[in-house]
Amino acid sequence: MVSVGTDWKALASEKRDAVLAQIPDAWKIPGTISSADEVPDVTGPYIQQFLDAREIMVTETDAVGIVEKTSSGEWTAVEVTKAFCHRAALAHQLVNCLHEICFDAAIENAQQLDTYFAEYKQPVGPLHGLPVSLKDQFHIKGIETTMGYVGWIGTFQGNKDDPRRFTFESELVKELRNLGAVLYCKTSVPTTLMTTETVNNILGYTWNPRNRHLSSGGSSGGEAALIALKGSPGGFGTDIGGSVRIPASYNGLWGLRPCGRLPYEGAATSIDGQNTVLSVVGPLSSSLGGLKLLFKAILQQQPWLHDPMVIEIPWREPIVEETQRLITKAKSTPGVLAFGLLRHDGIVHPTPPVARALGSVVSALRQAGHKIIEWDPPSHKLGAKILMDALTADGGADVRYHLGLSGEPQPEQIGVNRQQEEQKNVLEVAAINIAKREYKKAYLEYWNSTKDLTDTGRPVDAVLCPVTAHSPITPNKSRSMEYTLVSSLLDYTAVVIPVTHVKKEVDLPHTSMEYLSEWDKLAQTEYDPKVHFNGPVGIQLLGRCLEEEKMLTLAEYIKTEVLDR
Amino acid sequence: MVSVGTDWKALASEKRDAVLAQIPDAWKIPGTISSADEVPDVTGPYIQQFLDAREIMVTETDAVGIVEKTSSGEWTAVEVTKAFCHRAALAHQLVNCLHEICFDAAIENAQQLDTYFAEYKQPVGPLHGLPVSLKDQFHIKGIETTMGYVGWIGTFQGNKDDPRRFTFESELVKELRNLGAVLYCKTSVPTTLMTTETVNNILGYTWNPRNRHLSSGGSSGGEAALIALKGSPGGFGTDIGGSVRIPASYNGLWGLRPCGRLPYEGAATSIDGQNTVLSVVGPLSSSLGGLKLLFKAILQQQPWLHDPMVIEIPWREPIVEETQRLITKAKSTPGVLAFGLLRHDGIVHPTPPVARALGSVVSALRQAGHKIIEWDPPSHKLGAKILMDALTADGGADVRYHLGLSGEPQPEQIGVNRQQEEQKNVLEVAAINIAKREYKKAYLEYWNSTKDLTDTGRPVDAVLCPVTAHSPITPNKSRSMEYTLVSSLLDYTAVVIPVTHVKKEVDLPHTSMEYLSEWDKLAQTEYDPKVHFNGPVGIQLLGRCLEEEKMLTLAEYIKTEVLDR
Repeated sequence: MVSVGTDWKALASEKRDAVLAQIPDAWKIPGTISSADEVPDVTGPYIQQFLDAREIMVTETDAVGIVEKTSSGEWTAVEVTKAFCHRAALAHQLVNCLHEICFDAAIENAQQLDTYFAEYKQPVGPLHGLPVSLKDQFHIKGIETTMGYVGWIGTFQGNKDDPRRFTFESELVKELRNLGAVLYCKTSVPTTLMTTETVNNILGYTWNPRNRHLSSGGSSGGEAALIALKGSPGGFGTDIGGSVRIPASYNGLWGLRPCGRLPYEGAATSIDGQNTVLSVVGPLSSSLGGLKLLFKAILQQQPWLHDPMVIEIPWREPIVEETQRLITKAKSTPGVLAFGLLRHDGIVHPTPPVARALGSVVSALRQAGHKIIEWDPPSHKLGAKILMDALTADGGADVRYHLGLSGEPQPEQIGVNRQQEEQKNVLEVAAINIAKREYKKAYLEYWNSTKDLTDTGRPVDAVLCPVTAHSPITPNKSRSMEYTLVSSLLDYTAVVIPVTHVKKEVDLPHTSMEYLSEWDKLAQTEYDPKVHFNGPVGIQLLGRCLEEEKMLTLAEYIKTEVLDR
Repeated sequence: MVSVGTDWKALASEKRDAVLAQIPDAWKIPGTISSADEVPDVTGPYIQQFLDAREIMVTETDAVGIVEKTSSGEWTAVEVTKAFCHRAALAHQLVNCLHEICFDAAIENAQQLDTYFAEYKQPVGPLHGLPVSLKDQFHIKGIETTMGYVGWIGTFQGNKDDPRRFTFESELVKELRNLGAVLYCKTSVPTTLMTTETVNNILGYTWNPRNRHLSSGGSSGGEAALIALKGSPGGFGTDIGGSVRIPASYNGLWGLRPCGRLPYEGAATSIDGQNTVLSVVGPLSSSLGGLKLLFKAILQQQPWLHDPMVIEIPWREPIVEETQRLITKAKSTPGVLAFGLLRHDGIVHPTPPVARALGSVVSALRQAGHKIIEWDPPSHKLGAKILMDALTADGGADVRYHLGLSGEPQPEQIGVNRQQEEQKNVLEVAAINIAKREYKKAYLEYWNSTKDLTDTGRPVDAVLCPVTAHSPITPNKSRSMEYTLVSSLLDYTAVVIPVTHVKKEVDLPHTSMEYLSEWDKLAQTEYDPKVHFNGPVGIQLLGRCLEEEKMLTLAEYIKTEVLDR
């Protein structure tokens, strides 16, 4: 372990420099990088100026398009990998999104894939030659995992003598390799993973590529920022209370919070062993096709054979077909699909751009003939409290231990676990587990009860709600997490659908409003389209537990036939 | 709550008498009941002497046969119900197996089913008119749930003011009613549910019908004893460490420990909220057909719509078909099925009758051309320790509370939670959860590794092992629980297959043996065929998590085509 006496600032600075040093000189941005004031939005033309036309074409192809080309031999894995390494290197210099870089190993790996293809005239697997980025909780051989802790530098999860350092790979990583994916970098996370911004003492702050005054979200914020800059076609984050979904929304991406169907085995995490609410692995991608590709590919690997926490449920095509039949029927028979609409969670109203995003989806669905039910579920305040009780039950002991390895301070964004609190005992934890079960029961029965309102003979098919009340925030201004916390507590399937971005002239602050809480007042009064402009906004499509196939199919329909038509 | 000052013995005695008073005089056994010395075995001819021929015929028909008759109108629900009420009343007088009786309500319910059938010419559901018994953890309106606690008499789970008393029904009960089942009694359990014998301060001891000097097993001991006496065609128990399986084995029954696919919602339990290892609901029946009927019928009710802990997986017929294809292939191609064989768990050798039961199944499988692999898994001692750490993490606080409601003492069989111990804290519980996950991972990888040994291209299809080292024990002589504890920790699917019974002349004590532990020495030296004669013995067929369809299909093949051929 790092001794506390060591200067954590020096360690952090050294690590930061070591990561930058992995970027070839040719890929360094020449001169001074424009400031956020000068160039708030570094996506599109800005980042493109540092790339050649072919690199732009390759990196702006979505994951599905890429594997089509690499699997037919039209593009080599090496060309694709180099293009994404280059663009990821640029992205990092612009928004500070990478914890680890392994470009050389990635290109070598891509070369092997090309050799295989040349010999066997077929791809290694369904992700042949696809670069996939990973949040810095997953272990890849040859590089470290710090998870933002200074005390983890030079160690394996804080333990200097653990032989797994540099050699161990998480189950997800092994499966990605089996599928033919190329691993080339790991993306930034906030210290503790438990906040909706990405900031830590090693890298500092990960900024939003659309407006670099704003947050990229968290905790999978580096992942989302990288994908938004098309430095990655897609990758994997984790989510215990919104950590895939909030970054996806903040970066205009598709995100999936599945139930426990993807392997967490062998990944680092916070408060490991807390099992009231489990963190889950979920994909993010710039396209819905990419999201589905990543999710389905991992399921093909039968992760339940190597991760005892994964439920043995393969991709269920019959559910897709059943959902498609419903959709087809719905086109001729109005009201065949029914959606719940949660206008607000009783804690914080959606800010104007979020309300507009939600409203636009609802209008389009109504126009397409679908029934919208006002969603009036059990108290989200209670649900969020139960989840926070679970996450803080150790009184911060886990976080304090890992901060203590280096003596680094806790970034101010991290509200959870700040105080020295007592750990709960077994019966107190049991009471939280019972409260959770009772809340889930009440929510399930509420869901069932909507059968009487839909005219479809079924309860609602899905629920539409904000991801958070916010469009991307400025640092340390998060006032709303409950929209994702509650679906985590419920272990519901959630797809984030990117919808819009903040428009200065359109999304004016609410002029008068009855605030739901002090948080609501803060969220509304702090919202300023002149500050928050250009920040992307998505919404959540919620299904019950294990409804991934149904929700992804509904999301596809909503995207292609309702919103884009 | 009952005040501690109240005389618990008087309360218990009053309750015991109240249950007996529910038995009509005509069904009381006249005179003195023969002693266990005079008549050890009260099954078959002994209990039949108190029944008429028609009652015997009805009650000795298995669950599948009964619903065939009631669903075609050949038998009325009232006739079937009355016959089982009568036989259950006799069973209770002989082995002390009922906590609650509601014969009048059951007959009234059966009458309604008959009226429905007369009007609509069709059954209410797949369990139309089938009497189903339930362990005294499930709430049925009109009767109490004491779960063996004196302090719960006159209360709802220990709370005198809870309005759910006499009115609330557990989810399983509601679903059984929807299916057309008739609920007529609740069966005995041991105090705390955490022991392999059934004994409590209300009823005393529940004896084994085949030899009333022996235990009926626990904690679903009343359930198994009742079914063994054909006072029920099948019912539901619960299992957190063997509580369905040990009683099934001790009573010559089929039993299933599924993963969390049946609803526990609204049932009473011990240390509620402990979620490292969850107790599961599982059926027991005198026939495999009955076992499958009960399991599949509940799944048809989509219990996940009303129990948030139930995984949404309907009965998967394609897995049955795939397994049947394997079996068909196996008949022409030796070695197509492969089984692991756990000869002992490293803690207690199977006693002679159990070793013979296991050996006979293995021989028959070998003779049928199947491959048998010696099973050499991660330490079962470690697995059992992890599970016991979870079950004792509250230091006995829950049990002490409920015993304290009446001031009753803890029966000596209940080893768990005896001492006043400290509760563990959150990080200590987290360490148990991590140990569990790591153990499951190691076991899963061991299972996978047998692919190299089977010659089938697959790892073993199932594992054969004892249920416990014992045939039915005499009171307070349990020395082996680990065979079931470990599969509970792993959350593996387990089917108990009844195989044989202890034969005085055949199952002689091991003459020389290297003991695996002090427990082994006790188990072997205490085993005496002259004491334990006639006690039934089953074995476990283990599959991985959620392999219920495969295991039930394999069990059927083993029963009908391997053992009975």
